[in-house]
Amino acid sequence: MLECLQRGKRAVHHVWVDERAGDERRLAAIVGIAGKRGIPVEAVPRQDLDRRADGRVHNGVIARVEPVRTWKMGALLEQLENPSPFLLFADELTYEHNLGAILRSALGFGVDALVLPSKRGAGLSPVVQRVSMGAVEEVPIVRESLYAALKLVKKAGIPVVGADMGGEPADRVDLTGPLALVMGGEGRGLPDGIRERCDRVVSVPLAGGLESLNVSVAAAVLMYEKRRQERGL
Amino acid sequence: MLECLQRGKRAVHHVWVDERAGDERRLAAIVGIAGKRGIPVEAVPRQDLDRRADGRVHNGVIARVEPVRTWKMGALLEQLENPSPFLLFADELTYEHNLGAILRSALGFGVDALVLPSKRGAGLSPVVQRVSMGAVEEVPIVRESLYAALKLVKKAGIPVVGADMGGEPADRVDLTGPLALVMGGEGRGLPDGIRERCDRVVSVPLAGGLESLNVSVAAAVLMYEKRRQERGL
Repeated sequence: MLECLQRGKRAVHHVWVDERAGDERRLAAIVGIAGKRGIPVEAVPRQDLDRRADGRVHNGVIARVEPVRTWKMGALLEQLENPSPFLLFADELTYEHNLGAILRSALGFGVDALVLPSKRGAGLSPVVQRVSMGAVEEVPIVRESLYAALKLVKKAGIPVVGADMGGEPADRVDLTGPLALVMGGEGRGLPDGIRERCDRVVSVPLAGGLESLNVSVAAAVLMYEKRRQERGL
Repeated sequence: MLECLQRGKRAVHHVWVDERAGDERRLAAIVGIAGKRGIPVEAVPRQDLDRRADGRVHNGVIARVEPVRTWKMGALLEQLENPSPFLLFADELTYEHNLGAILRSALGFGVDALVLPSKRGAGLSPVVQRVSMGAVEEVPIVRESLYAALKLVKKAGIPVVGADMGGEPADRVDLTGPLALVMGGEGRGLPDGIRERCDRVVSVPLAGGLESLNVSVAAAVLMYEKRRQERGL
């Protein structure tokens, strides 16, 4: 929540804070920013927070915040100013921590948008937002059928590279320039229908003894590899 | 647990499985391997598993297993056959998921040993073991004061490279050959005392807008970078 307030992209309507929280630094920062912005801050009993959180982790503070804005691919492509866009597709992630981690890395590697299926898989839950360390405020998120989104991306002339076991070693494939990088869900890899739509399929070369990396780790390594190639070393 | 049985490195003494689990594939595989090895398998009521798990996730099966073996750095260095060892140090990780993810990536990138502080930080809990996807069975783990372990590593002539914000871009530093890579804990980075003992400090170059990557992601990117350099592309 501190990152949400600091980055100031979304309206925060109300903050409830544990009345017995004392002067924990993170909470103090949240209350400080909220106060300056004229956002109502209410000190309430811990049980009140527990009830509002409904079983989820709240760390002593809850806010009512404008939902994360999402895009359709057509609208996103129209407003993209980057002539060399980097789009990351993630098919049906099961674990909120993986989605949050991918968002965080996507911000770190300058991804222009993260594309998620419209309905399936983990959504932009409070856990995802927390794990993303504020990246959910910064990285535009497209929610749309991946097939429909890929169609528009290909029409725009952006190369599509899938990530899957058995693909070419990522460092032997040119990843510079406009790119749509497509990750499969945990433990499933790329669905055939998506794999067929990829211009190339890459993988992270591994030593023996492990079949695959965690999907958020693999995504980060491939984003890193693209940026490394672009630095031209 | 399936990975623990499949890899067969540790003695499994007893398996308790949900008597109403039906024919879930993963459970069937566990029961199958345990049966072949003559490990006692007991079908018990769900509540019995809940009680044994004491609040932790059990997914319908629990085993009593020999503890994970750990090493001291001196003994490990003596028995290492690799003339170009790759050691990964991780200082005081708070989150079990990060430790598990680091173990999994360490196996994927052929790390010879993971070095953890002897007492502080996350231990080799069931969550860590599960997230590691079997890597806890394969990657030797040293538990020792990082200072003491670093001393032996330096004495053995292995270069020590720390990972921290503000370090040199990792792809501009030669990471080939023997290496001890040292990661700091989440959100804290390298303690000064450890940083001083590093021959170089590297970082993963990031776009603006994000201070740092998740520690398990940063570790994987750096392990990848070392192996990429060694493939000589």
